[in-house]
Amino acid sequence: MNSKKNAFYAQSGGVTAVINASACGVIETAAKSKKINKVLCGENGILGALNENLIDTSKESKTTIAKLKNTPGGAFGSCRFKLQDPVKQKKEYERLFEVFAAHDINYFFYNGGGDSQDTTYKVSEMAKKLKFPLQCIGIPKTVDNDLPFTDCSPGFGSVAKYVATSTLEAGLDVKSMAATSTKVFILEVMGRHAGWIAAASCLASSNSEDPPHIILLPEVPFEKNKFLTQVKQTVRKNGFCVVVASEGTQMKNGKFLADSGLTDAFGHKQLGGVAPVLSGMISKLGLKNHWAVADYLQRSARHIASKTDLDQAYAVGEFAVKLATSGKTAVMPIIKRISDAPYKWKIDTVSLKKVANVEKTVPKKFISKNGFKITSAGRKYLSPLIQGEAQTNFNLGIPDVAFLKKDLLKKKLKKFN
Amino acid sequence: MNSKKNAFYAQSGGVTAVINASACGVIETAAKSKKINKVLCGENGILGALNENLIDTSKESKTTIAKLKNTPGGAFGSCRFKLQDPVKQKKEYERLFEVFAAHDINYFFYNGGGDSQDTTYKVSEMAKKLKFPLQCIGIPKTVDNDLPFTDCSPGFGSVAKYVATSTLEAGLDVKSMAATSTKVFILEVMGRHAGWIAAASCLASSNSEDPPHIILLPEVPFEKNKFLTQVKQTVRKNGFCVVVASEGTQMKNGKFLADSGLTDAFGHKQLGGVAPVLSGMISKLGLKNHWAVADYLQRSARHIASKTDLDQAYAVGEFAVKLATSGKTAVMPIIKRISDAPYKWKIDTVSLKKVANVEKTVPKKFISKNGFKITSAGRKYLSPLIQGEAQTNFNLGIPDVAFLKKDLLKKKLKKFN
Repeated sequence: MNSKKNAFYAQSGGVTAVINASACGVIETAAKSKKINKVLCGENGILGALNENLIDTSKESKTTIAKLKNTPGGAFGSCRFKLQDPVKQKKEYERLFEVFAAHDINYFFYNGGGDSQDTTYKVSEMAKKLKFPLQCIGIPKTVDNDLPFTDCSPGFGSVAKYVATSTLEAGLDVKSMAATSTKVFILEVMGRHAGWIAAASCLASSNSEDPPHIILLPEVPFEKNKFLTQVKQTVRKNGFCVVVASEGTQMKNGKFLADSGLTDAFGHKQLGGVAPVLSGMISKLGLKNHWAVADYLQRSARHIASKTDLDQAYAVGEFAVKLATSGKTAVMPIIKRISDAPYKWKIDTVSLKKVANVEKTVPKKFISKNGFKITSAGRKYLSPLIQGEAQTNFNLGIPDVAFLKKDLLKKKLKKFN
Repeated sequence: MNSKKNAFYAQSGGVTAVINASACGVIETAAKSKKINKVLCGENGILGALNENLIDTSKESKTTIAKLKNTPGGAFGSCRFKLQDPVKQKKEYERLFEVFAAHDINYFFYNGGGDSQDTTYKVSEMAKKLKFPLQCIGIPKTVDNDLPFTDCSPGFGSVAKYVATSTLEAGLDVKSMAATSTKVFILEVMGRHAGWIAAASCLASSNSEDPPHIILLPEVPFEKNKFLTQVKQTVRKNGFCVVVASEGTQMKNGKFLADSGLTDAFGHKQLGGVAPVLSGMISKLGLKNHWAVADYLQRSARHIASKTDLDQAYAVGEFAVKLATSGKTAVMPIIKRISDAPYKWKIDTVSLKKVANVEKTVPKKFISKNGFKITSAGRKYLSPLIQGEAQTNFNLGIPDVAFLKKDLLKKKLKKFN
């Protein structure tokens, strides 16, 4: 008889360039553990547990599992699905435990952002109530860097490196065109409520003449005239201007600029994009401009991932398994910064009860007085997170990513509605 | 007395991730030549010659010059400026020769696309007429890959690698979200008249299930219903759909989709973007979608440059100097493909008279019957161009680019109006 128990792992919410490195950390560490038998992954996140679609990772080769570190996106499928509140509607939570019981699952790893950590906590509470032996560990992940307690969120460092690099590169481009053509370039990046990603563009240069010249954060209310004046002044002074805008750039009344109501020729309301709205304003100044919207490219750009971020993503997965097998539950590994320069970090833990639904935005001390720049305190925080280039393997000119077999376990239960 | 003569080099039109590698090839090769004294670069392209703003590259360190290979954009400044037709208005051409005479310039290198090669040709004709000893060599460059005679245009291979990589990466992202969230992802890439860049996205996968599922080229008239049917079918079959659209996607009547008239809440007409227009159409199907516009990011992404492309960009610069110093004029080095697999190429030359204002679009045999895919003949052509990863050096987490002193020569002439 096998005394080892199975582990469940699932990916949740928006994916990142390195979430699969966390998966790899879980699977490779579990393989060395004396307590864990198989790691079963939920196909499409927690839906995989509800629907009993469990991917048997023991059927994947070691090479494929190792290649997860080179693969962006959520290799097992993620989902945007919030379980019903167990106090009001227990059905979904009960189903989870049916599936865990049927498949000998005593370890629960949930890789996600704030909402997912809330779910992990509720699962742990339910397990306690049911006296079901389940160690529940949250694994942090979000490009938004808005998770509390952890110094940074795995996934953020890589998007930060992508945005800093892209700002530098596109900045050199527009600088060379500015004499006779494009004078302003706008890069729209993610961050609906927290401006960490836009803030990270400051790492593209170490002086105020070079891009980015203007950073727009959701934390700073957008004032059209102040913004346009800054654009004009920058072009007058430097010959060109690079703007990096959070998708969540908003007015004082909380209205998103991107929701300012674009309509197309057919009268259809258009999906946002703050960049085209800013472009429209700048065009009225008579300044030729170009704009880019990075969207999914930024959070999936594994080819320019930060080595620091990749290492941390792997480490939280690895540590999660160690926590679980040492009997811990309802906790999440976090990154603790020991020093800025040289940058040193270690893994610590936090109780999930504290994490749930707290959002960390860019603090005031990181934002310059005029609201358009990042202070040296902010740079000191951000800079270490983009250091190092994660090795990327290529095959035939493109990244050599993992293709999983995704063998599903045989179902033992009835279909769940 | 110095029998060596000076050379003039300038960058023209939209810049690329590797145009500075061509500059590096010119400068490093000239430094070894017994015939060339200094390479003087036009500040902001040909404007630098007209305004006598000549950057003295002999004042830059060898390390800085070598670093040009690691630096996107046009390091000496580019320009969008077409000289007046010398038949109608000789003033500008005459000024060029005044400046060349004043600064002992006997070699003229012009790094650009079709328009610039036309200029180079006209300069060579004028030199002949004036009996001015000037060897005029065009150096090919354009991300659009639309130059004739050359197998490919330096600059294209790198944007092709960026687009193939981004399509692969973002495709993995949307695939993992599709069960409960985003089902369609649209990536808009450059290419107003020729769809080479969008076509290159086909290299992201080698089977029809994986992204890109739909490629929109300017060469294929856009039909809304046919497109939406293809999107729906792809989502039904694969669960998600990735569309890569040329900015120049156009209707049968030649009207650009991007010009279909977006207006913002203030009633301002918005600058194009074909992606938001497609997104609006797809949203009407009830399919959640995301879109990205790569814009300058794609053509400045030196960090993901193709080694093949970087080598070719350097080689055409190097060869241009050899052509000039061996007495050739009114020619352009081109890439000649010797074999597909293994990919072999060499440098050949073409007369500039033939090059001027001819545009090479994606041929019919490279486009699938339904117009949405690239054929195996197309893949065979495109694939070698993205092979190899150009080494990128980083410093403090971002690419380590060249910062030039840009010492200008002392002016000898009166200001030009």
